[in-house]
Amino acid sequence: MIILGIDPGYATIGYGVLEYLRGRFRVMDYGAVTTQAGLDFPRRLQIIHEGITELCDRYRPDCMAVEELFFNTNITTGIQVGHARGVILLAGCQKGVEIYEYTPLQVKQSVVGYGRAEKHQVMDMTRQLLGLERIPKPDDAADALALAICHAHSSKSNLLKVNL
Amino acid sequence: MIILGIDPGYATIGYGVLEYLRGRFRVMDYGAVTTQAGLDFPRRLQIIHEGITELCDRYRPDCMAVEELFFNTNITTGIQVGHARGVILLAGCQKGVEIYEYTPLQVKQSVVGYGRAEKHQVMDMTRQLLGLERIPKPDDAADALALAICHAHSSKSNLLKVNL
Repeated sequence: MIILGIDPGYATIGYGVLEYLRGRFRVMDYGAVTTQAGLDFPRRLQIIHEGITELCDRYRPDCMAVEELFFNTNITTGIQVGHARGVILLAGCQKGVEIYEYTPLQVKQSVVGYGRAEKHQVMDMTRQLLGLERIPKPDDAADALALAICHAHSSKSNLLKVNL
Repeated sequence: MIILGIDPGYATIGYGVLEYLRGRFRVMDYGAVTTQAGLDFPRRLQIIHEGITELCDRYRPDCMAVEELFFNTNITTGIQVGHARGVILLAGCQKGVEIYEYTPLQVKQSVVGYGRAEKHQVMDMTRQLLGLERIPKPDDAADALALAICHAHSSKSNLLKVNL
């Protein structure tokens, strides 16, 4: 199973591509799609849509794990991230990728084992689980890889449930 | 000038297409793109994107006038409308349409003449300005036509400014 994890945003959209086979991870790619602040907002949405479409074409993921949105910070930023997240989900859907959503709490529980883990703990556990020497950069890419791990763990437990 | 007015939403997206020539309006089309509640949300986004893309292909609008989002009601609804609005802006941008945003206040001021106008006053003035016998249905289509009128008025005043 190939999983594309996405940390949504409108300036920096983190992505991580993992292959998950018999309980083992292989990192295929990670990084960020970025858009410049000076561009028109619709044009930024277009760049994000193209970036996610390209990732789907290149890696043919079976599923996409996207972080759920929470409006606990700036409402204007939240609106803009909502727009960006819309075109991210659209790109996945157009490419026939199954889309799953996870909350930050679910990611922490899945990766570290408890929901109140600190950000650096999540990042370091992500690094360990993927057998990487260093924590992936930028942070958004590390977050995206953690989302992909979260989905792998959750689909594994689903499989186990089905087989019981 | 052909103007596509859009009243954003995720269940019902009102649209109105107007030709505006020498201070006169011609109604080319109006209606709504709708998505079913039971569908996956990414699939609903895809239907919205296809619907707006089709309108752009059919009428080749010069510009699109889209209502700005306000989160004065339900926050969850607001998030979902943000996603939908993202794919609407994307569709316009992909078709090379210039995109403009107007607040409900600007629409009321432009169509009725004052910002505290009631909804039915905006709708009836929209009907009169477009020379229609009845108020267009659904309400979302009437709202979209009002947005298109607002843009026509605003671009007219811009033109006058340039010509002074």
